[in-house]
Amino acid sequence: FWADRIAANQAAIPVGRQRLVEAGNIGNLRVAAGEQAGAARGAVFWDSDVFKWMEAAAWEYARSPDPELRGHLSELTATVAAAQDGDGYLNSVLRLRGEPRYTQLWMSHELYNAGHLFQAAVAAARATGDNTLLDVAVRFADHLADTFGPGERGELEGHPGVETGLVELYRETDERRYLDLAAYFIDARGHGRATKPGFDPSHYADPAHYADRVPIREAANLEGHAVRAVYFALGATDVAIETGDAELFDAVRRLFDATAARKQHVTGGVGSRWDGEAFGDDYELPPDRAYAETCAAIGMLQWAWRLLLATGEAKYADQMERILYNAVLPAVSLTEAEYFYVNTLHRRTGARPDVQRSPSNGRRPWFNCACCPPNIMRTLASLPAYVATGSLDQLQIHQYAEGALRSGDFAVDVRTAYPWDGRVVVTVREAPAHPVELALRVPQWSEATVDGERVAAGGYARTSRVFRPGDQVVLELDLTPRLIVADQRVDATRGCVAVARGPLVYAVEQPEHPDAVIEDLRLDPAAPIHPEPRPDLLSGVTVLRSADLTLIPYYAWANRGPHAMRIWLPTLENHR
Amino acid sequence: FWADRIAANQAAIPVGRQRLVEAGNIGNLRVAAGEQAGAARGAVFWDSDVFKWMEAAAWEYARSPDPELRGHLSELTATVAAAQDGDGYLNSVLRLRGEPRYTQLWMSHELYNAGHLFQAAVAAARATGDNTLLDVAVRFADHLADTFGPGERGELEGHPGVETGLVELYRETDERRYLDLAAYFIDARGHGRATKPGFDPSHYADPAHYADRVPIREAANLEGHAVRAVYFALGATDVAIETGDAELFDAVRRLFDATAARKQHVTGGVGSRWDGEAFGDDYELPPDRAYAETCAAIGMLQWAWRLLLATGEAKYADQMERILYNAVLPAVSLTEAEYFYVNTLHRRTGARPDVQRSPSNGRRPWFNCACCPPNIMRTLASLPAYVATGSLDQLQIHQYAEGALRSGDFAVDVRTAYPWDGRVVVTVREAPAHPVELALRVPQWSEATVDGERVAAGGYARTSRVFRPGDQVVLELDLTPRLIVADQRVDATRGCVAVARGPLVYAVEQPEHPDAVIEDLRLDPAAPIHPEPRPDLLSGVTVLRSADLTLIPYYAWANRGPHAMRIWLPTLENHR
Repeated sequence: FWADRIAANQAAIPVGRQRLVEAGNIGNLRVAAGEQAGAARGAVFWDSDVFKWMEAAAWEYARSPDPELRGHLSELTATVAAAQDGDGYLNSVLRLRGEPRYTQLWMSHELYNAGHLFQAAVAAARATGDNTLLDVAVRFADHLADTFGPGERGELEGHPGVETGLVELYRETDERRYLDLAAYFIDARGHGRATKPGFDPSHYADPAHYADRVPIREAANLEGHAVRAVYFALGATDVAIETGDAELFDAVRRLFDATAARKQHVTGGVGSRWDGEAFGDDYELPPDRAYAETCAAIGMLQWAWRLLLATGEAKYADQMERILYNAVLPAVSLTEAEYFYVNTLHRRTGARPDVQRSPSNGRRPWFNCACCPPNIMRTLASLPAYVATGSLDQLQIHQYAEGALRSGDFAVDVRTAYPWDGRVVVTVREAPAHPVELALRVPQWSEATVDGERVAAGGYARTSRVFRPGDQVVLELDLTPRLIVADQRVDATRGCVAVARGPLVYAVEQPEHPDAVIEDLRLDPAAPIHPEPRPDLLSGVTVLRSADLTLIPYYAWANRGPHAMRIWLPTLENHR
Repeated sequence: FWADRIAANQAAIPVGRQRLVEAGNIGNLRVAAGEQAGAARGAVFWDSDVFKWMEAAAWEYARSPDPELRGHLSELTATVAAAQDGDGYLNSVLRLRGEPRYTQLWMSHELYNAGHLFQAAVAAARATGDNTLLDVAVRFADHLADTFGPGERGELEGHPGVETGLVELYRETDERRYLDLAAYFIDARGHGRATKPGFDPSHYADPAHYADRVPIREAANLEGHAVRAVYFALGATDVAIETGDAELFDAVRRLFDATAARKQHVTGGVGSRWDGEAFGDDYELPPDRAYAETCAAIGMLQWAWRLLLATGEAKYADQMERILYNAVLPAVSLTEAEYFYVNTLHRRTGARPDVQRSPSNGRRPWFNCACCPPNIMRTLASLPAYVATGSLDQLQIHQYAEGALRSGDFAVDVRTAYPWDGRVVVTVREAPAHPVELALRVPQWSEATVDGERVAAGGYARTSRVFRPGDQVVLELDLTPRLIVADQRVDATRGCVAVARGPLVYAVEQPEHPDAVIEDLRLDPAAPIHPEPRPDLLSGVTVLRSADLTLIPYYAWANRGPHAMRIWLPTLENHR
């Protein structure tokens, strides 16, 4: 399953570069590098889209070394290096505009850009062994460490993102100043120092918009701009883990769990308001006006990954699975390099697109604010890293996909038709002479068996022994379709159920119901639901049939045009 | 009932003038008039807030002649006259900024300002007999007629409003050019000529935002920015009526009915999206994120009034009643001059205000964009005009309030404790010798009796005879509380009911349920609902009791702080 998605992403990455050329992002850097003449196009944050693309290219090159891709990456790296100021600062747009640094930090994204540069640089160093971009990152990071921090400039950047980049750079370089600066940014926030100064009637004057209203250690909730809030929590998680700050770690874990309990859509996406691209109040989760920005889902994925690594708790791997299948994957077309910025859970009959990013347009090749497409590219390119973790005597498999896994001397092949089929066969290829623990995640939604023995839902089924090549461990997950009901306080889905099978959330879409008004369809919760493999449909899916309804996996919607679609299905009529 | 509201408005009008001074709107005009020095403050549309206040002052003066109010009105009139350019054009902000006219029509509101000036001028002429402001209006209108129209400038203003003002000015002056220009503006729209040119990823590039996507004769729906769409439809209705254009009249009537059927909240308010202050798609009516801007409700009220006058159909008077009690009145505090811009139907427990106009702030004294407060002032000041219509041998009573009514030689007194009590006693004070038809509206929601005889719900109960002084006609409306269920396609209120009594929509609010989470309250539709007069509460209301719930009239919410509140009450739990 994922191999097909990764292959499509492989094809999409060069297309993405071309679009960054056409939009002008790469041109800005080339002009700043002195490679060509021209004026700045777009916004200050446009450099970050290039850096995200470079990160995607690096991870993709690590996965599948393609010389042409490497050539493009090297060429861009040289451009970025040449565009850097002598003191390490780097921003092509401000340079081309002749505008000063750090004067509109609340909106400029200068440090956000740096964070993405750092992540790209670490990826490039690891993937290619070439440290050119890493050197650029180090110079920028040194400049930031000289400029911000205790006793230095007091303002903070409006858009978090630099924090996680600094920690990543610290991990790669062992330079403690970067971790210290990230830790400083985490605790400096929450006092309105990242907020637009002066009066503004809009959310630009709201500290919550910048994750800047309450210090994160005291926060009860994520609030405001969803991507900012999640990216900031992600950075705080990195800092907590690397510094061993248990209080901060408890805070971010509490925030994740609060978000999952009260502010997350059934798809795993977050963000309920178009206005301010924001979290709603608790239980404000409208399917039709869900914002569920792709970047926010990717942030949630990365955040869950860190919490999984730090705690080993299967619920975070469950979250990653839910988000990957139902919040990240829906954002990209099955076969075209086209993307959703906003991931609605309900496209109404007759819905009219009012803005560029409206999902009623269908997926689009690019956006004026193109944060999402290269974010998907880097996520899909780095997907293999999320599948399993291990140590000398352990292998934990978190996500089920066909492929080969290795942890030290322990190597296995995984064969499965997941998510269409619940059978996962792990065959040992190599094994050390000492005992190894093989841990297989059992999702919260599934009873399961391992080698025929029943294991509980939610957690890891562990098999510990001396394995021999050829040994097999067979996990059987229960993919019986299930009905999901929302919390009582969610009004927007009252009297409705969502249908899921395995990790996939399902939806009804107009093409299967050509004569119906999608809003008039009802699901009978008492009717049996039958899975039906349809290799011919939507690059191969298993549909679900319930009475006269046919449901498709949500991720596959809008691949036949932007039709009416909905996930939450009423089970009853409005009545007194 | 309404006498109290009008008295509060009388007190609020001088406060409103003071706030226009403090905010700077009046200062802009004074500087433009050469009365004082200074720089422009605020936006180009800020003049309109002054004109709306002047209209309110004029109607209020007509209702209750107060010399001090007249003095303020005269003083402001002189200022406005002095701020006018030699050729009739008038805008204080552009003049102070030295910026050219008509270069950013999609956003500048220059003609919208003119529309409000025209309405104020007609009100002032009728209320005071002083034509100074009318002369200013005529000079501006002549300038517009010379500047726009067939063969002249092709662009249109982004914010409708001038159309209804032009027709009002035509009615007062009989100058056909004004009606012709209004008619031109109506049919010129719908081809993207009012839309921001060039690419913009936001709704600013969406012709629907400007009511400019589809010619109004072909439109199936109101869409985009709610106030713009409603104001434009209002102007089109004026044009249709004054020109006798039956096709156009059918179109606006169809649009009103479509809006009422699919895009209107139970309160009568319209607008479902914060993003773009816009109508949603059909059936997109979220209580918690309802925008329901006060100005949009006032536009709907004025539109329904015009349709009532043109058709005599009681359903439009029903709409006016619903809007007045539940969409306009909730926007103003019971005793303070404080206002809602956004009229939510559900303030969630723990809701956090994110922007200045968030209803979670409670009502506010003023707004940076202060279109709503003076709009309420002019509406409440002109309320007596909406109560009844008549001719020599007819009197139609549309709204029930205590007071004296006259139509020719036929004069009556109305006594009622409506909306708390359903009994309306009409006592004839003077009557001509010939028969007169007295028509009393019977709302769609009420069975009724007139002088003990049953009359059908929905329509006018007509009594035609030769009346004598002292004759009484007694209307008894049925105020039994009723449960309202939304259309099946409205997801946001599925499994919920709203409770109404007479014209009033009710709500639960935290103060009556101090220990409950408002979201956890359930209404048992089988339980009886008991009205209970509470003269001590919220300036005197009748509350409703149902089992352990106590409901207050929605208009009175947020007068004890911005507490959790909701109109739509779940009757059941979420379940499969």
